[in-house]
Amino acid sequence: MAMLLRTRPATTPPLLALFDDAATIAHALAFEAALARAEADCGLIDGAIADAIGAASRAIAIDAAILADEAALAGTLAIPLVKRLRAALDGDAAKAVHRGATSQDLADTVLMLQLAGAIPLILADARRVVAALTALAERHAATPAIGRTLLQDALPIGFGLRIAHWAAGIAAATDRLAAEIADGLPLQFGGAAGTRAGLDGKGADVAAALARHLGLASPPGPWQAERTTPAALAAALAILTGALGKMARDISLLAQNAVGEAREGIVAGRGGSSAMAHKRNPTGCQVALSAALRSPGLTAIVLGAMPQEEERGLGGWQAEGPVLAELAMLAGGAAAVMADVAEGLDIDEAAIARNIAAAGIGEDIGESAALVTALLAPSRKAD
Amino acid sequence: MAMLLRTRPATTPPLLALFDDAATIAHALAFEAALARAEADCGLIDGAIADAIGAASRAIAIDAAILADEAALAGTLAIPLVKRLRAALDGDAAKAVHRGATSQDLADTVLMLQLAGAIPLILADARRVVAALTALAERHAATPAIGRTLLQDALPIGFGLRIAHWAAGIAAATDRLAAEIADGLPLQFGGAAGTRAGLDGKGADVAAALARHLGLASPPGPWQAERTTPAALAAALAILTGALGKMARDISLLAQNAVGEAREGIVAGRGGSSAMAHKRNPTGCQVALSAALRSPGLTAIVLGAMPQEEERGLGGWQAEGPVLAELAMLAGGAAAVMADVAEGLDIDEAAIARNIAAAGIGEDIGESAALVTALLAPSRKAD
Amino acid sequence: MAMLLRTRPATTPPLLALFDDAATIAHALAFEAALARAEADCGLIDGAIADAIGAASRAIAIDAAILADEAALAGTLAIPLVKRLRAALDGDAAKAVHRGATSQDLADTVLMLQLAGAIPLILADARRVVAALTALAERHAATPAIGRTLLQDALPIGFGLRIAHWAAGIAAATDRLAAEIADGLPLQFGGAAGTRAGLDGKGADVAAALARHLGLASPPGPWQAERTTPAALAAALAILTGALGKMARDISLLAQNAVGEAREGIVAGRGGSSAMAHKRNPTGCQVALSAALRSPGLTAIVLGAMPQEEERGLGGWQAEGPVLAELAMLAGGAAAVMADVAEGLDIDEAAIARNIAAAGIGEDIGESAALVTALLAPSRKAD
Amino acid sequence: MAMLLRTRPATTPPLLALFDDAATIAHALAFEAALARAEADCGLIDGAIADAIGAASRAIAIDAAILADEAALAGTLAIPLVKRLRAALDGDAAKAVHRGATSQDLADTVLMLQLAGAIPLILADARRVVAALTALAERHAATPAIGRTLLQDALPIGFGLRIAHWAAGIAAATDRLAAEIADGLPLQFGGAAGTRAGLDGKGADVAAALARHLGLASPPGPWQAERTTPAALAAALAILTGALGKMARDISLLAQNAVGEAREGIVAGRGGSSAMAHKRNPTGCQVALSAALRSPGLTAIVLGAMPQEEERGLGGWQAEGPVLAELAMLAGGAAAVMADVAEGLDIDEAAIARNIAAAGIGEDIGESAALVTALLAPSRKAD
Repeated sequence: MAMLLRTRPATTPPLLALFDDAATIAHALAFEAALARAEADCGLIDGAIADAIGAASRAIAIDAAILADEAALAGTLAIPLVKRLRAALDGDAAKAVHRGATSQDLADTVLMLQLAGAIPLILADARRVVAALTALAERHAATPAIGRTLLQDALPIGFGLRIAHWAAGIAAATDRLAAEIADGLPLQFGGAAGTRAGLDGKGADVAAALARHLGLASPPGPWQAERTTPAALAAALAILTGALGKMARDISLLAQNAVGEAREGIVAGRGGSSAMAHKRNPTGCQVALSAALRSPGLTAIVLGAMPQEEERGLGGWQAEGPVLAELAMLAGGAAAVMADVAEGLDIDEAAIARNIAAAGIGEDIGESAALVTALLAPSRKAD
Repeated sequence: MAMLLRTRPATTPPLLALFDDAATIAHALAFEAALARAEADCGLIDGAIADAIGAASRAIAIDAAILADEAALAGTLAIPLVKRLRAALDGDAAKAVHRGATSQDLADTVLMLQLAGAIPLILADARRVVAALTALAERHAATPAIGRTLLQDALPIGFGLRIAHWAAGIAAATDRLAAEIADGLPLQFGGAAGTRAGLDGKGADVAAALARHLGLASPPGPWQAERTTPAALAAALAILTGALGKMARDISLLAQNAVGEAREGIVAGRGGSSAMAHKRNPTGCQVALSAALRSPGLTAIVLGAMPQEEERGLGGWQAEGPVLAELAMLAGGAAAVMADVAEGLDIDEAAIARNIAAAGIGEDIGESAALVTALLAPSRKAD
Repeated sequence: MAMLLRTRPATTPPLLALFDDAATIAHALAFEAALARAEADCGLIDGAIADAIGAASRAIAIDAAILADEAALAGTLAIPLVKRLRAALDGDAAKAVHRGATSQDLADTVLMLQLAGAIPLILADARRVVAALTALAERHAATPAIGRTLLQDALPIGFGLRIAHWAAGIAAATDRLAAEIADGLPLQFGGAAGTRAGLDGKGADVAAALARHLGLASPPGPWQAERTTPAALAAALAILTGALGKMARDISLLAQNAVGEAREGIVAGRGGSSAMAHKRNPTGCQVALSAALRSPGLTAIVLGAMPQEEERGLGGWQAEGPVLAELAMLAGGAAAVMADVAEGLDIDEAAIARNIAAAGIGEDIGESAALVTALLAPSRKAD
Repeated sequence: MAMLLRTRPATTPPLLALFDDAATIAHALAFEAALARAEADCGLIDGAIADAIGAASRAIAIDAAILADEAALAGTLAIPLVKRLRAALDGDAAKAVHRGATSQDLADTVLMLQLAGAIPLILADARRVVAALTALAERHAATPAIGRTLLQDALPIGFGLRIAHWAAGIAAATDRLAAEIADGLPLQFGGAAGTRAGLDGKGADVAAALARHLGLASPPGPWQAERTTPAALAAALAILTGALGKMARDISLLAQNAVGEAREGIVAGRGGSSAMAHKRNPTGCQVALSAALRSPGLTAIVLGAMPQEEERGLGGWQAEGPVLAELAMLAGGAAAVMADVAEGLDIDEAAIARNIAAAGIGEDIGESAALVTALLAPSRKAD
C-alpha cells in the first residue's frame, strides 16, 4: 500500500527511508528501550529489566501494515506498539514498559528523532547548492548581462550578481534551519498529563537520561501542547524550500529557448519528454518549484494547529506529524536536486552577450562585482 | 518504504488502496490500453495492435519502487512506464503505444480515475453521517438543552437543533461534492502541446472514445494548463471535511466530563489511552478535526498552483496530484469515522437536563423544532 | 486611519466603496430598519414603531472611527450600533430595535449584503475578460505559434488556442461564482441562540419578510455556526482569481522582450518605472498575479474557520468577515484590470511567426482551430 | 474609504496608526529626504540640494486618496510620490530626488520602517503577557487541578503548570520575534536593476548612510528578489500569534460555565452580548483566536511569494506588503488583548477544587511545581 509514485519524485531515497514505517517503528522501539534504560539509570527499575526491554525491542518483528491498522483504531501508535512489546516480555519487564510515558511522548519524540536525522541531510545538500553557486557567482561576477525586472529587460547587471542572490538566500535559509537544530531537537517526555507523575520525583533525571540515550536535547519541560518547536521547524523548512524555489524560478526563465542564458546540465535519463524527443526540460527546477508551491500551505497547517487544547490537544498534534515529515522531504528533495543543478549548470556566455546587446542599453553593471563579494561574504565565512 | 503509520490513521483502507502504487500503475496501464483501443476504433491503428497493447498492459508486471525511482529521474511517470510497455511489445505495436498522448495526459487522467473511484466512497460515508444525524435530530428536536455561544451558556435550544445544523452542513457539502462529479470527471487528452496533433484530424473522436472506455467525461478540450477542475475538487473536498470538523468540534465539546451531553459510542479498541485506562477519548472526532486542520492548507496549494505556464506548467500540476490524493483520503477518513460516530452517538438526556437546569434560564426553545424540520428538509428530499 | 495605499492598488474604487465603513454602517442600519419593518409586517410591533426605527436609521449620523473603537471593545459591531440607534428613539421604539436579533445576525447579513453587491460587479468584469478573449481567440485560432511546455519550446499550436484556454478557465470560474449567487445570498437570522425565540412563533415569517426587504434569499434556517456558505464563496472567488492569474502569468511570459508575442496595451500613466523611462511593465498582470498569490491563503483561513463551536463560535466567524471582503476585492481588482488587458492586448504576429520559425519544427497546429471552437462553445452559449 | 470596522477590532490604535496612509506617506518622504542626505554625505549631490529635498519632503501635503488612485494606475507608490516631490522643487533639486533608487527600494524600506516601529510594540505587550502569566503560574504552581487531554479529564496537574506552558510558549515566540529585529531590520537599496548603478561607485557608502539616517540595518546588499527576510518576519509573527492563541483556547475552555476555573476579568463595555445581558463573553480570547486563525494563511502567502522572478518579481513583493502589515497588526492586537486578559485573569480556586474532586482520581500532581520553575526559568532570565 505504498505511495512511492506520488512521494518519491519529490524527495530522495535517504529521506524516504528516514520517515518510512521501518524507521518509525525502529525509533519507537528505541524510545521504549532508552526509556527503560534511563529509568534503570535513575534506580526506578532494575537494570536487568531494562536489558530485557532493550533486547525485546531489538528482537521484535512488527508488521507495519497491521500495526497501522491497529494504530488507526486505537487513535495512537503507542497503544498497539506497547501492547506488542509487553506481550514479548514477562511479568515485571512487561509492566515496566512505557512507565511514566504516554502516546504523545512517543509520537513527538519519534518525530524529533526523524527530523534530527533528516535536517543534517537537507543542510548538506543546501550547502552543496551554496558552494556551487558561490563559485559560479564569482566566475561570472562581472559578466555584463541584461537585468530583468517585472519580467522586462531593465538595465545591465553582472550575471554573477543574479547567482549571488540565489546563494545569499539559500545560505540565509540554511543558517536559519541549522540554528533550529544547533542545540539539538528536544525530547518530549511528560507522561499522562504532562506532570511526570509516577516516577518517584525523578522525572527530570529520567528525562535527561532519556534525552542523552536518544541523542536529543533535554528541554526545561515537556511541550505536548506548547507547539512553538514544530511551528518553527515547519517555517524554517519552508523558507529554505522557498529560497531554492527562487533559484529554480530564475533558471527555468533563463532556460527558455528565447533566452538561453543558463540551463540544467545534462543528466542521463532526466528532463526528457514522453512526446518530444528533442526537448530538454528543466526537471530539477520542476521538483524545486513544486516543493515551493506545496510548502507554504503545509506550513500553514502546522501554524494553524498551534492553539492545542489544555494539557494535550485533540487533532492538532496528530496533524503535525505527517505534515512535518512532508515538509522535510520536500525541502530535502528540492535541495538535492538543486545541488545537482547548481553543480552542473550550463551557462551560455554567448547568449548572455547576445541578450544584453539586443537590449541596447550599454553595459554599465554598476557595483555588481562588489555586491557579489559582499553578498557571498556570509556564506564564505561559514566555510 | 511505505508510510502507513503516518497515512493510515487519517483514512480508510479502501481509499488507501485507490491511491496506492498498484492502483496508480493499473490505471496508467488502463489508460494506455484504452488509448490504443480508442485509436483502433477511429481507424488510426489496427485492432490487432490495440489487442496486443491491451494484452501487454494486463500482463506486464512492474515493480513500483523501481518505477518510482525512474519516474523521479525522468520527471514524469509516463516516460518509464511507456518504455516498459513498449519493451514488452513488438515493432508496430511498440510504436503505437502512447500515440498522440503525453505525460500529463496520463498523470491527470490517472488522477481523475482515482478521484472518480474515491469520491463515491466519500459521498456514501458522508450520507451515512447525514442519515444518522437526521434521525438523531428528529428524536431530540424538542429536548430542551442549553445553547452555547462563544463557549458560554446562552439560551435554551432544542438539542436536536444543534444536530440538525451538523446534518445541514454536511448535507450541503455532500451535495456540492456530488455536483462536481455529476457529469463525470473529465478525461485529459491533448498530446504534446495540447493540440491533438498527429491523430489525422481525429483527435476529438479519439478523445471521446478514450473517455468512454475509461468511464470518464469527455470535456470540450484538454485542460492541461486550465486548472479550475482540480481547484474546484480540492475546495469541495475541503468544505466537506470542514463540515465534518464542525460536528467533531461540537461532539468533543459535548463529551467533556463537565458537560457530558454526548459522547462517541464504545468501539472495541478505540479511544483508549496508553497511560490512563479509565479514559474514553473522542478518537473519531480527533480524526475529523485533524483532517479539518490539514485540508485548508492543502486546498491553498491547489488554488495557488492555478497560474500554470502556457501550454503546460512547470511544478504546478506536479504539485496537485499528491495533494488532491491527500485531500480525498482526509475527507474520506473523516466521513467514515464520523459515520461511525453518528451511528453510535451516546446522548445523555440526564446530562442535558442537568446542564440546562444549572443555567437557570428556563426552557423556551423558541422555534427549534420547526427549524429542525426546515433544516433537514433538503437532505430528506435527497433520499 | 485609512490604508488606501495598501488596498487601493489591488482593487477598484467601486469595490472599496462597497466594503468601506460607510457602506458597512449603512447596511447595518438597513438591517435594523428592515427587521423592524418585517416585525411590523408580522404584527409583532406597531407599524408606527417600525416607521420610527426606519426614520432614525436613515437620519442617524455615526462616526465610523468612534464606532470602530467601541465595537473593538464590545467584541461586536452590533452592540454600540444598536445602543446609538436606541438612544435616538423613544421608549417603545427604542425597545423594539434589534428585537429577536443578535450580533452575528447583523454581521453575517451585512457581509452577505456587501458580497451581493460586489459579486455582480466582479462577474461583469470577468465576463468582459471572456468576451474580449473570445474574439481574440477566434481571430488567432489558426495562427501558427510555438507552443511551450515546462517553459520550453514544444510543438506548434494555434495562437488562439492559448487564449481560448484562458477564456475557458475564466468562463468556468465565472459560472461557478455566478452559481453561488444564483438563488441569492442568504439572510442570517436566528437570534441569541439561533432558535428565533421571542418572536411569538413567527420567526420564520419574520425571516422571510426580512430577507425580502433586504433583497436576500431566505434559507431554511439560520447558519450562524454552519459555515459552508462562506467557505464556498471564498473558494469560488479564489478560483476565479486563479483563472485570471493563469492568463496574467501567460501574458507576462509572452511580453518578455525575448518573446514579445503579446503585451498589455498602452494605458496613459500605467506600467512605467520610477527608474527607467523606457520600460513598459505588465502592470495589469502584476495586479492579477498578486491577487492570485494572496487568495489561496485567504481561502484557507475561511476553510479553517469552519469548525465553529456549538451555537455560535469564538473567533471563527469574526475571522471570516475581513477575509471574505478581501477575497472579493482581490477577485474584482484582478477581473477589472484583466478586462482592460484583454480588451487592449497587443498581439505581435511578426514575433509569433519569428518565434515559431526559430523553433524549426514546422507549423502543424493539429486540431487547434477546432479546439478553439469547442473550448469557447460554453461561453458563447452563455451570451 | 476606511475599513476601520473590519480592521480595528483585530488590532490596536497605535498599530493602525503605524500602518495607515499618513505613516506610509511620512515614511516614503523620509526615505527620499534621507536618500538625498546620504548622497550629499557621499558628495554625490550638494548639501543645499539635500536640504531643499528634506525641506520639501517635510512641507509637502499629499492627499492619500488621490495618491492611492495614482499609485494603483502606475503600479507603484513611488512614481506619483516622486513626481509630486519633484514638482515642489526646482531644477537640480527636482532632478536629484530619488537618484539611484527605484520603486521597490521605497516600498520595501517603508515596510521595514513600519515593522521596525510595530514589532517593539508587539514585543512589549507579549512581555506583559509573559510577566503576568509568570506570576500566576508561580502562585498556582502547586494547586491541584484536573489535567485534561484530548478534551477529557486525565490526571491531576498543578494549575500553574498549565499557565507556565502558556508563558513558556509565548516567551519562546517573543524571543524568536525579538531575534528577528536584534540587528535591526534591513534597508532595501539597489536601484533600477539592483546594481546600485549611477552612484559613481559610492553605492555601498550611500546605502550605509541611508540606513543610518533611517535607523535601519545596512545589509550586505539589496534583497529585492531574495525574500527570506519577509518570510522569516511573517513566520515569527504568526508563531507568536499562535502561542497567544493557545493561551486563548485554554482560557475559553476554562471559562465554560460547566468548568469555570478561569475567566477574563471584567472590563467595562467588554464581553457583552447584543441579545443576552447576563453573558460574560471571552472577548479577549475571541480576538486572539481569530488572529490565530488568520495568521497561518497569511504566512503561507508570504512563503508562497518567495520564488520571485530574476532581478525584481512580478506580483510577489506587491503581495507581501499588505499581508505583512496585517500579520503585524494581528499579532499586536492579540498580544495587547491577552496582556489585559493575563493581568486581569479571574482564577476560581473553588471551581478548580470542585472539578478535580469530581474526577475522583486523587491529587498527585507529580512534578508540576518543579516543572513550573523550570519552564519559567528562560523568561525569568530574560527580565
